[in-house]
Amino acid sequence: MAPQPPKRLLRLLHDALAETPPGRCVWVALSGGLDSSLLLTLAAEACHTSGRPLRALHVNHGLQAAASEFETHCQQLCQHLGVPLAIERVAVEVQGEGVEGAARRARYAAFAQHVAPGDALWLAQHQDDQAETLLLAALRGSGIRGLAGMPYRREWQGITLLRPWLSVSRQTLADAAHAMALRWCEDPTNQDIALDRNRLRHEVLPTLTQRWPGAVRSLAQSAGLAGEADALLASYAAEELATLALGAGCLDAAALAELPPPRQRLLIRTLCQQLGLPTPPQVRLASLLGQLTAAQDAQVLVEWPGTQARVWRRRLYLMAPLPTQPDWQTTWNGEPGVPTPLGALQLRLERDSSSAAPVILRWRQGGEVLVLPGRGRRDLKRLLQERALPPWERERLIVVMAGEHCLGALQPPANVLWQAAGVVFHTG
Amino acid sequence: MAPQPPKRLLRLLHDALAETPPGRCVWVALSGGLDSSLLLTLAAEACHTSGRPLRALHVNHGLQAAASEFETHCQQLCQHLGVPLAIERVAVEVQGEGVEGAARRARYAAFAQHVAPGDALWLAQHQDDQAETLLLAALRGSGIRGLAGMPYRREWQGITLLRPWLSVSRQTLADAAHAMALRWCEDPTNQDIALDRNRLRHEVLPTLTQRWPGAVRSLAQSAGLAGEADALLASYAAEELATLALGAGCLDAAALAELPPPRQRLLIRTLCQQLGLPTPPQVRLASLLGQLTAAQDAQVLVEWPGTQARVWRRRLYLMAPLPTQPDWQTTWNGEPGVPTPLGALQLRLERDSSSAAPVILRWRQGGEVLVLPGRGRRDLKRLLQERALPPWERERLIVVMAGEHCLGALQPPANVLWQAAGVVFHTG
Repeated sequence: MAPQPPKRLLRLLHDALAETPPGRCVWVALSGGLDSSLLLTLAAEACHTSGRPLRALHVNHGLQAAASEFETHCQQLCQHLGVPLAIERVAVEVQGEGVEGAARRARYAAFAQHVAPGDALWLAQHQDDQAETLLLAALRGSGIRGLAGMPYRREWQGITLLRPWLSVSRQTLADAAHAMALRWCEDPTNQDIALDRNRLRHEVLPTLTQRWPGAVRSLAQSAGLAGEADALLASYAAEELATLALGAGCLDAAALAELPPPRQRLLIRTLCQQLGLPTPPQVRLASLLGQLTAAQDAQVLVEWPGTQARVWRRRLYLMAPLPTQPDWQTTWNGEPGVPTPLGALQLRLERDSSSAAPVILRWRQGGEVLVLPGRGRRDLKRLLQERALPPWERERLIVVMAGEHCLGALQPPANVLWQAAGVVFHTG
Repeated sequence: MAPQPPKRLLRLLHDALAETPPGRCVWVALSGGLDSSLLLTLAAEACHTSGRPLRALHVNHGLQAAASEFETHCQQLCQHLGVPLAIERVAVEVQGEGVEGAARRARYAAFAQHVAPGDALWLAQHQDDQAETLLLAALRGSGIRGLAGMPYRREWQGITLLRPWLSVSRQTLADAAHAMALRWCEDPTNQDIALDRNRLRHEVLPTLTQRWPGAVRSLAQSAGLAGEADALLASYAAEELATLALGAGCLDAAALAELPPPRQRLLIRTLCQQLGLPTPPQVRLASLLGQLTAAQDAQVLVEWPGTQARVWRRRLYLMAPLPTQPDWQTTWNGEPGVPTPLGALQLRLERDSSSAAPVILRWRQGGEVLVLPGRGRRDLKRLLQERALPPWERERLIVVMAGEHCLGALQPPANVLWQAAGVVFHTG
């Protein structure tokens, strides 16, 4: 006789406990629906057996009429199980990513607020959810990262996100819930086929399952294999990036250009991910790769939302967009924190001789001259060329002026590039 | 105004011509259906313009009543276009892979027979075929190689296989065929929803397309991205394999065991593919990886259909299954080609002194003694230990005996391991 579903399900929770750092708290994201109500109920048993602290977190999006009914159910269930419950009411602000995306963002913000780094958060998505995610990704034309769907385990902001039900079918969970006479709330939006996911669930997957009875399990398996392939590619790409790196966000463009184009594309996408920048659309990426071997002093700039890519002197730089530079200058009376449009400058100045001229901080504008210790008068422009400072950084230099005398050139927050003779800057 | 479909389609054929080695012949695989009839018709125009020789190949599987009608149509079309046509009638023998798989195998055998290495063969699969292939792969739980579907271009037995229509929808091809008043044969089996692909085509894809109008294009795009990821992984894996290789089909098992398990799995699968061996099922692979660090002289053997994996002395060997060894010995009268159960041995023997004893070839069975030049009597067993010949090769040694005297030990087809004093073997 096969083991009863609850036994197999409990075993999965003990597997999940083994992945949760010892002594740390387990949180369950509790919507109040069948899947998460069952997860919390069995987690209470598993955590009790193994002496783990357990808590539940309910995020109330306030998106539907039934929202308060869900919240009440969560309170009752937690009281019944003796599990402390945190409730977070969030306002879902749609920012062009659709209501589902906005709700997801609000939910994750609530996770970060309640769950301490080091703790684990268990999510109730199951095999059918995973199969739907793969199909939705393929219907968007996604690459393997999208086809991979949801990972079983992921580290996120120091929290271990785990999906213990990911290998379990919706039907198995429903059977277990009925066998246990569990109570839960039905989400009325689950029937709304205006939502992509519900359309798949109610119209496409039943057709598939009729012909291919193992469809859900197979689709979820393909997702898992795509996830493994994606992680493998990321690890190879990280190793190759390390051989090309010339600093944070900066690669040897000439060496990159010698690789096969698919590798170039992979490495740029991976570097964006490492830097937390959006990855480029195909057309932008092709444009950038076509300019990797631009002439030494050409200043290549390719942009996409959230990212600027620059090529200069055979180096590729990826960065968040530089803000446009407002007109700015300020008088400095020696106070330690000087606000600038690029952030505060933590500054202290020692001078051999006090001078009557007020000290001004402003952008470099050309024509500044420094008297360097032991080197005499130098044009700042020549100094910048000697140092090979990238052009976009030259435009963002702050100079400290006392009348016509340039006392120093600085980059916020704490980088003193040059200081004049008789002057010492202390930063940070 | 957008260009007329035939213009766009012709441009794709010129792109395909650019991928075909200059001066070499273009073949079109002509089933007689819409897609390949249109491909041949437009290929005739493109090849005429650029002065390329063009030929058509029709494979008659004889699987359906309509088969002769298809053949007649192909003859008429080729006559009309002035394109030489080769017809290959094949017998489809189902060997456990289903009738579609068997037909495919017969088709490829026909390709290899007619198309010369260096030539290109164009296949008429289109975007809808590709979308269906991705879905079928996901419904089988395939990894990214399966999800990748069909490649636009592939080298196969020296032939360049190209699919010029892979980015074109079925509807675009149908519109063009109607606009050109083309004639073609309808395949009656296309309506048979007992076939997986037709079930998808007629029941699943229309549902998807109704909700997601770009579904086919998106699915095909996902397939293309999976293919790119698969090729990238294969290239990284090949580089890593080269650092672990200790000979053909042999890896440093200790170094392999130090890699993360997903890399171990990738490398073993990739090595199988390089060697033309079937890749292991998950369970076998896990079993093999668990034994990579077995004791020096343990003889690990893990098998799956078509492959044997062995670990011995910290080396992993992958090979086609060794045949079981029949009882065998033969008298050798000096003829040059000696048949053995392991293949023919091309052998010639020079001996200092002729001997009355007949010369016998047989398996090593233990107890053989050789008199080596300058070294005297040696047990063959000790010699094998000295040479560190893997145990499974020791069992497959052929010894040349003259009475009680062992004249030599050989491995077919041409490897003489030891020869006795006064004896010279010439092989090959």
